[in-house]
Amino acid sequence: MSESESLDWRGESSAVAVLSFDVDAESPIVAADGRHADNAMAMSHQAYGPNVGVPRLLELLADYELPASFFVPGLTADRYPATVEQILEAGHEIGHHSYSHRSPLLLGTDGERADFERALAALERFGVKPRGHRAAGWEARWQTAELVIEHGLEYDSSLMGHDRPYRLLTAAGPLIELPVHWSLDDWEQYAFLPNPDIGRVIESPRKVAEMWKLELEAMRRHKGLFMLTCHPFLSGRPSRVEALREVIEHALSLDYKFMQAAEVAAQASLDPELPEQDHGPLDLDSQIFPRSDSPERR
Amino acid sequence: MSESESLDWRGESSAVAVLSFDVDAESPIVAADGRHADNAMAMSHQAYGPNVGVPRLLELLADYELPASFFVPGLTADRYPATVEQILEAGHEIGHHSYSHRSPLLLGTDGERADFERALAALERFGVKPRGHRAAGWEARWQTAELVIEHGLEYDSSLMGHDRPYRLLTAAGPLIELPVHWSLDDWEQYAFLPNPDIGRVIESPRKVAEMWKLELEAMRRHKGLFMLTCHPFLSGRPSRVEALREVIEHALSLDYKFMQAAEVAAQASLDPELPEQDHGPLDLDSQIFPRSDSPERR
Amino acid sequence: MSESESLDWRGESSAVAVLSFDVDAESPIVAADGRHADNAMAMSHQAYGPNVGVPRLLELLADYELPASFFVPGLTADRYPATVEQILEAGHEIGHHSYSHRSPLLLGTDGERADFERALAALERFGVKPRGHRAAGWEARWQTAELVIEHGLEYDSSLMGHDRPYRLLTAAGPLIELPVHWSLDDWEQYAFLPNPDIGRVIESPRKVAEMWKLELEAMRRHKGLFMLTCHPFLSGRPSRVEALREVIEHALSLDYKFMQAAEVAAQASLDPELPEQDHGPLDLDSQIFPRSDSPERR
Amino acid sequence: MSESESLDWRGESSAVAVLSFDVDAESPIVAADGRHADNAMAMSHQAYGPNVGVPRLLELLADYELPASFFVPGLTADRYPATVEQILEAGHEIGHHSYSHRSPLLLGTDGERADFERALAALERFGVKPRGHRAAGWEARWQTAELVIEHGLEYDSSLMGHDRPYRLLTAAGPLIELPVHWSLDDWEQYAFLPNPDIGRVIESPRKVAEMWKLELEAMRRHKGLFMLTCHPFLSGRPSRVEALREVIEHALSLDYKFMQAAEVAAQASLDPELPEQDHGPLDLDSQIFPRSDSPERR
Repeated sequence: MSESESLDWRGESSAVAVLSFDVDAESPIVAADGRHADNAMAMSHQAYGPNVGVPRLLELLADYELPASFFVPGLTADRYPATVEQILEAGHEIGHHSYSHRSPLLLGTDGERADFERALAALERFGVKPRGHRAAGWEARWQTAELVIEHGLEYDSSLMGHDRPYRLLTAAGPLIELPVHWSLDDWEQYAFLPNPDIGRVIESPRKVAEMWKLELEAMRRHKGLFMLTCHPFLSGRPSRVEALREVIEHALSLDYKFMQAAEVAAQASLDPELPEQDHGPLDLDSQIFPRSDSPERR
Repeated sequence: MSESESLDWRGESSAVAVLSFDVDAESPIVAADGRHADNAMAMSHQAYGPNVGVPRLLELLADYELPASFFVPGLTADRYPATVEQILEAGHEIGHHSYSHRSPLLLGTDGERADFERALAALERFGVKPRGHRAAGWEARWQTAELVIEHGLEYDSSLMGHDRPYRLLTAAGPLIELPVHWSLDDWEQYAFLPNPDIGRVIESPRKVAEMWKLELEAMRRHKGLFMLTCHPFLSGRPSRVEALREVIEHALSLDYKFMQAAEVAAQASLDPELPEQDHGPLDLDSQIFPRSDSPERR
Repeated sequence: MSESESLDWRGESSAVAVLSFDVDAESPIVAADGRHADNAMAMSHQAYGPNVGVPRLLELLADYELPASFFVPGLTADRYPATVEQILEAGHEIGHHSYSHRSPLLLGTDGERADFERALAALERFGVKPRGHRAAGWEARWQTAELVIEHGLEYDSSLMGHDRPYRLLTAAGPLIELPVHWSLDDWEQYAFLPNPDIGRVIESPRKVAEMWKLELEAMRRHKGLFMLTCHPFLSGRPSRVEALREVIEHALSLDYKFMQAAEVAAQASLDPELPEQDHGPLDLDSQIFPRSDSPERR
Repeated sequence: MSESESLDWRGESSAVAVLSFDVDAESPIVAADGRHADNAMAMSHQAYGPNVGVPRLLELLADYELPASFFVPGLTADRYPATVEQILEAGHEIGHHSYSHRSPLLLGTDGERADFERALAALERFGVKPRGHRAAGWEARWQTAELVIEHGLEYDSSLMGHDRPYRLLTAAGPLIELPVHWSLDDWEQYAFLPNPDIGRVIESPRKVAEMWKLELEAMRRHKGLFMLTCHPFLSGRPSRVEALREVIEHALSLDYKFMQAAEVAAQASLDPELPEQDHGPLDLDSQIFPRSDSPERR
């Protein structure tokens, strides 16, 4: 590798942030149970995301000329084509986020593959060939990374094994992981719905902005990747947009560079010092750690 | 439509707020299970609403000469007629809020209709013909809007598809929706009862006032309708009344105009720029999104 | 009634506070399930109350020469006689708080009576004849108030129908109620135990002190009885004792008078303006509000 | 006992703190159910502890030259030998924290013994003979203390019967207890994972630092042992490390002495004034406190 190609994953920047938006719309709700489609209120709660949240968040990004990455389930792409077009027109990245938002853990090997490919087909209808993948509910299986590699994507963004980009060493070869974390996600702070129960506490945007600003400061010191995950149906609400604005302005004041996830992954792939982790099933003694599903699965 | 009739939904105001109060009393508790009627403490917890909360909140409204909208379940009207009279004497709007507070999702088509009409009859005994409807637990079905239209009401206030008034395009014609949201509801912040479990965290009124004041500020910027929903059994407590006073004073300082929901709906119906949304069941592939109830329902 | 006997329930004071302590020790945990007695950690968590919390709280009360009311389950009295003696020696009131801390709703009519009388016998062994009663978990049944009257106690403190003392009009005659509320209880703020699940969020004493100070201020304005309920196993922890000290000092700065519950009840019984509420079962249509237990109970 | 041997457990210090770290890694997750080992995300979430959290926390400790105590489950020792070596090289104490992190309450008498000895063997492979024990999930049974004594360890740190070191009087003799508490644990503040559900609320590090600083101040006044329990997979995140730094600096400003748990236990064993508590099963009436498991267990 020539000197010019060898790079720290942060490039010339002292600190890097990615704003990622998971445009889930109805998918996580109907994935929990198809009968929730009868709940007009819950459906309207989710439709707010593409219809109101996305345009407002695109405006926020435009205010600061920031690039961002939108992870769009296939169901959302099918139901809200205009939303996909708006994101593309604004120049943002669109990533793979499953078709149905059902958990790979529930779908199993064949089901996950079918869902993965259905998602690619849905994005393909917009001419999008995603460079990155994010598992539904972040609930990746061990095989998920291999599916990502097999289909030629460049990175995954579902795991939490580090707070810097790292390299997964899988049976199918290496894969760049851009790690997420519960504490940098708006869902845990804002989501509330009793049925299905997607969360039970609604925090003030002031607390959320405070927490994320503390992490911006600390990640600068500890050289982490500030990968924020927001959901337009949650963070598109007025005072939450303004909290996000506050976080963005704080990041800019700390000299953070905002990048699309795919750009960060490309830089990370050239970094010879990138952390590496073996990626594959644990070897556990099933006598010591019994499985509740062992009779069914064998 | 003549020029004088065509209006922005906010009229001459730069920002609009509705104070809505859901006078649930015992209804949501006994709706969860009739046996909770044996729980004298839980019943007293709910009776506090009409007996103590409503008079105190009426006084607060009188302090600022504010109009408000009270959504009163039929059971409450039957059990607390003096409360209904007090609200009417103070000049506030009374809206439809079901009879039993049982979720339309559980009642089904015929059950919801029976409950809807029983609620109208209960209000009719006070000479009230409600202009607006709010579903129990906000859990409207797709058919709910059609029931509202069929019975000649002018607006619904149960959905979350926008944060401005919008027009539902239903099979039975258009309907004005004045959207609510979990984050502008006191229930998620204050409700606590272990049995039935109606909530498990009690926030400080300081946090609640802070959060709602942030939303007032941000909605002014993003042109939203500040539709606040409070429950007298919760927000009638002394320090919560004072938190609400703080929110009201902040709204007044930001030039918000307080209106009854029915007034806002009337103005919204004249706004040619009002957002519109198709309103009806999703077309989902039941192979991809299985329903847990499919064997029973067919 | 002569003029000298007729009193506002607050007497000469402009604001009244009661510090009540429920000395539950192991009772609510083993009441949830007898097998939790095998959990040595959970048992130690509860034993902290009488062993460490009570002496420390008695010291806090002594610092300000404040009277207080301790509600002591019979099981606690049997297991920790020295704790009962310490409370009595310090001159505080001891009230009835059930024997087992099992919910009256689960015990049923005969079971509740047996438990009620077992509790009286346990206190009797210390020469204590309680003047007031508080139901386990505040889960009073309609019959509970009649048991209280029948056994000659002067007040109950389990309900939430008002925030001032009020008179329950029961089939067995009137009874003074000194109402409690979830928001003036330390359990909802501090209790955490996964198994049995007694709570899942631990708040900062700073938040708790802030919330209670706001209620002190607002109750002064709205003329409520500040009835605080603390549990020595929770509020006996160092920083929580200091938060309680902060609340006490705030109350004193607002000219609150601290009284024992029995004293307040005695004054309330002389107040001709005391609010009154009918106390008895609701008349509900069981078709509209079905009971999950109707087949078993009939 | 000669005068020179007789010591207050705090030695010459006015206040004592122990920083303890439970290096759980995957153990609590796979202990909940072996099938969670299929969840690559959850596994990565836990692997962050030894791979990222521990080195970062060791650096924090080195910044202030502080001693600390690491409780390491056998499974973690087997899977992350380099982590164990790093802790030892930095001079910190390693304590017994079970092998599997399964609750003693579920393992039963024989299962707990087997797990206890498997854990000793795992640490033995590093030449570690632990001086102290902490039960998995703190869920000690009554017999646990006897296992600790039988195997020659000097202290336990799983119970909550006091907030100072105390002496358990067991059937097998006395044992020093260094008590823990939910409010001095990072799990309740930071842990979030939906499946298995290990927690549902994520607090700001600012709140956590505030709460722990209040406890530092109050424990100084009330002469408690500040025993903090952190988990590297949680508190190793950047802004949480910085919150811990803030707590450490506050403790130093209050003249706290930081010690390893084993050192505190050694001093406590010489303190003739140490609180003592009987340690053994409760004598409960099973008619009054029925057990849900009584048919199965007899």
